[in-house]
Amino acid sequence: PANKKLLVLPGDGIGPEVMHEVRRVIDWMQHRRSLSFEIDEGLVGGAAIDAVGSPCPDETVAKARAADAVLFGSVGGPKWDSLPFDQRPELGILRLRKDLGLFANLRPAVVLEPLVDASSLKPEIVRGVDIMVVRESTGGVYFGEPRGTETLPDGKRRAFDTDVYHEDEIARVARVAFDLARKRRNKVTSVEKANVMQSGRLWRAVVGEVHKAEFADVELENMYADNCAMQLCSRPRQFDVILGSNLFGDVLSDLAAALTGSLGMLPSATLGAVDATTGKRYALYEPIHGSAPDIAGRGIANPCAQMLSFAMLLRWSFGLEDDAKLLETAIEKVLAGGLRTADIMQTGRARVGTSVMGEAVVREL
Amino acid sequence: PANKKLLVLPGDGIGPEVMHEVRRVIDWMQHRRSLSFEIDEGLVGGAAIDAVGSPCPDETVAKARAADAVLFGSVGGPKWDSLPFDQRPELGILRLRKDLGLFANLRPAVVLEPLVDASSLKPEIVRGVDIMVVRESTGGVYFGEPRGTETLPDGKRRAFDTDVYHEDEIARVARVAFDLARKRRNKVTSVEKANVMQSGRLWRAVVGEVHKAEFADVELENMYADNCAMQLCSRPRQFDVILGSNLFGDVLSDLAAALTGSLGMLPSATLGAVDATTGKRYALYEPIHGSAPDIAGRGIANPCAQMLSFAMLLRWSFGLEDDAKLLETAIEKVLAGGLRTADIMQTGRARVGTSVMGEAVVREL
Ligand SMILES: CC(C)[C@H](C(=O)O)[C@@H](O)C(=O)O
Ligand SMILES: CC(C)[C@H](C(=O)O)[C@@H](O)C(=O)O
Repeated sequence: PANKKLLVLPGDGIGPEVMHEVRRVIDWMQHRRSLSFEIDEGLVGGAAIDAVGSPCPDETVAKARAADAVLFGSVGGPKWDSLPFDQRPELGILRLRKDLGLFANLRPAVVLEPLVDASSLKPEIVRGVDIMVVRESTGGVYFGEPRGTETLPDGKRRAFDTDVYHEDEIARVARVAFDLARKRRNKVTSVEKANVMQSGRLWRAVVGEVHKAEFADVELENMYADNCAMQLCSRPRQFDVILGSNLFGDVLSDLAAALTGSLGMLPSATLGAVDATTGKRYALYEPIHGSAPDIAGRGIANPCAQMLSFAMLLRWSFGLEDDAKLLETAIEKVLAGGLRTADIMQTGRARVGTSVMGEAVVREL
Repeated sequence: PANKKLLVLPGDGIGPEVMHEVRRVIDWMQHRRSLSFEIDEGLVGGAAIDAVGSPCPDETVAKARAADAVLFGSVGGPKWDSLPFDQRPELGILRLRKDLGLFANLRPAVVLEPLVDASSLKPEIVRGVDIMVVRESTGGVYFGEPRGTETLPDGKRRAFDTDVYHEDEIARVARVAFDLARKRRNKVTSVEKANVMQSGRLWRAVVGEVHKAEFADVELENMYADNCAMQLCSRPRQFDVILGSNLFGDVLSDLAAALTGSLGMLPSATLGAVDATTGKRYALYEPIHGSAPDIAGRGIANPCAQMLSFAMLLRWSFGLEDDAKLLETAIEKVLAGGLRTADIMQTGRARVGTSVMGEAVVREL
């Protein structure tokens, strides 16, 4: 797979720290496995604001379009919190999702056996949890128009957002969810508030239609978002694939991730459509965790989620199954060997920082 | 407190079953404590649809207005799932909230010591959890206009909802949250998605203004909704009062309730403004749990949440602190004595049905 192009966007907070460890993995792979992809690096988020005045410079979007896959770190931090709405670091990731048409955000929440005890839930409740949240990521209330804040004649403020879905937006992300379910445990739980929202009602209808027409072999369950939050907490093992709108997918995937107790271990992928002429599919890979400004710069962040995001990228965008597996296995072995970053620390294990963890993975490779 | 008027609305599913047990408590109180409130009963939800063709008949709204407090059961069930959007059982509760101006939905999530083990979370994580979620309940995406489903010229469907807040709506519910915090552990966590929603940004601004001007002594923390879902799951004890919009409050309060592991034990209250001339404050009390169609009619539902909702009503709307306490203590004693309904069953305890549980509470009284 020569000539594949990778764009690396470290971003803010712990982003650059954990990305540094991935670069060591990449170096190793390029030397020892003679993988020969081209690597470019770009600016995004607060780092891009500081350098060039925009959270997602046109140059970054152009580089992302030119790349076969994007490895993203994380964006945001208190430093940029008071910037106006349309200049915030978060726009870095939002614009990339929108401009590249990355409509399906895949967020796995997996409880690894050595980390069962890291969860705040009882081991008998979380052991074996393996959920894939498929979140719609270019529509809904994140981008819906009209939106704004207005001052009424009496001087009072009023602010509004529009949660809107077109049936095609729902259908295409539903297909991704059903497809994934077929390769997993064959069940999709589609989440909305069809009892109070019009867009939720259309969501339920369209998912049902796609199911009936194309995926009748997959089990489909409809669930209200509030109930899903409850069920995730009390009986998480009932879920296989969870499908939700941009907003519900955001909240529920974070909840699903939290219940594994090892957020620092979780990668994610955001995929676009396959281009009919070129066969190319835009894809961006990033850890579930954010920029974690509270621990940034202290060398204690867990680099595993970023490394596992890279493994997903190798598998899905570059077709390098063996190399992906090699990296995943190396990480598992390092954990089994007892090394733990602070976020997943358990008594009796060895607490290490970001770079020792990264080094151990490279050594294991 | 003679002449206080109570309206009872059992609704659907397990609503009538658990309400039946409350009626026994009321009978006991009227005879033995010579409480003399007037009781009326009304139709709501699917039961009202079946009887008179509307989920919230005008007569029910009129009765609710005439009452000093409403004791609500629960609404909804598969029987009415295919009704058009504007005729569903859920409109029963939605219209009551809106027409009576019940803007502050108070949903406590408390882990009772005898039920620590009922949680899916580890005892050391949930022991002592005592959270009050204050959910805005007459605004936001539940009622925002415009909303609808349209068919585009090409025959495709598009559906939209508006999430909208006026600054006064935010300020009044924020005051309720800060007021409650003062009587508790003095901390409010205000939840939104100010990073992606305009209404979230106004929410954060207005809560900050009310805090600064009137409640600077209370600790205020702002948190994104996705992060709050995570934190509730991993470190629930950090929270005292959580304040959120209609939608975020819905999802997060259900999550908070779920982590206690004893949904069948949790009451809630929804309060309106105090009328400046009459001094009257509309209030509706209901269990957190829904109509639970899956177990309805089997006599196994837990009546405690409905009874505890009645205790809240006695305290807050009728000023009967002693009687409220008496009922709460009776329920605690019955639990301490080992009786458990199926939802909170633990090994070594005695599993009982709805009416045995109700009877035990009355006997304890
Ligand atoms: C950074 C932020 C805009 C983003 C979101 O809300 O989508 C984040 O929470 C995520 O889930 O990727
Ligand atoms: C019945 C339904 C409309 C309602 C809601 O979503 O508000 C319920 O979930 C609740 O939380 O009271």
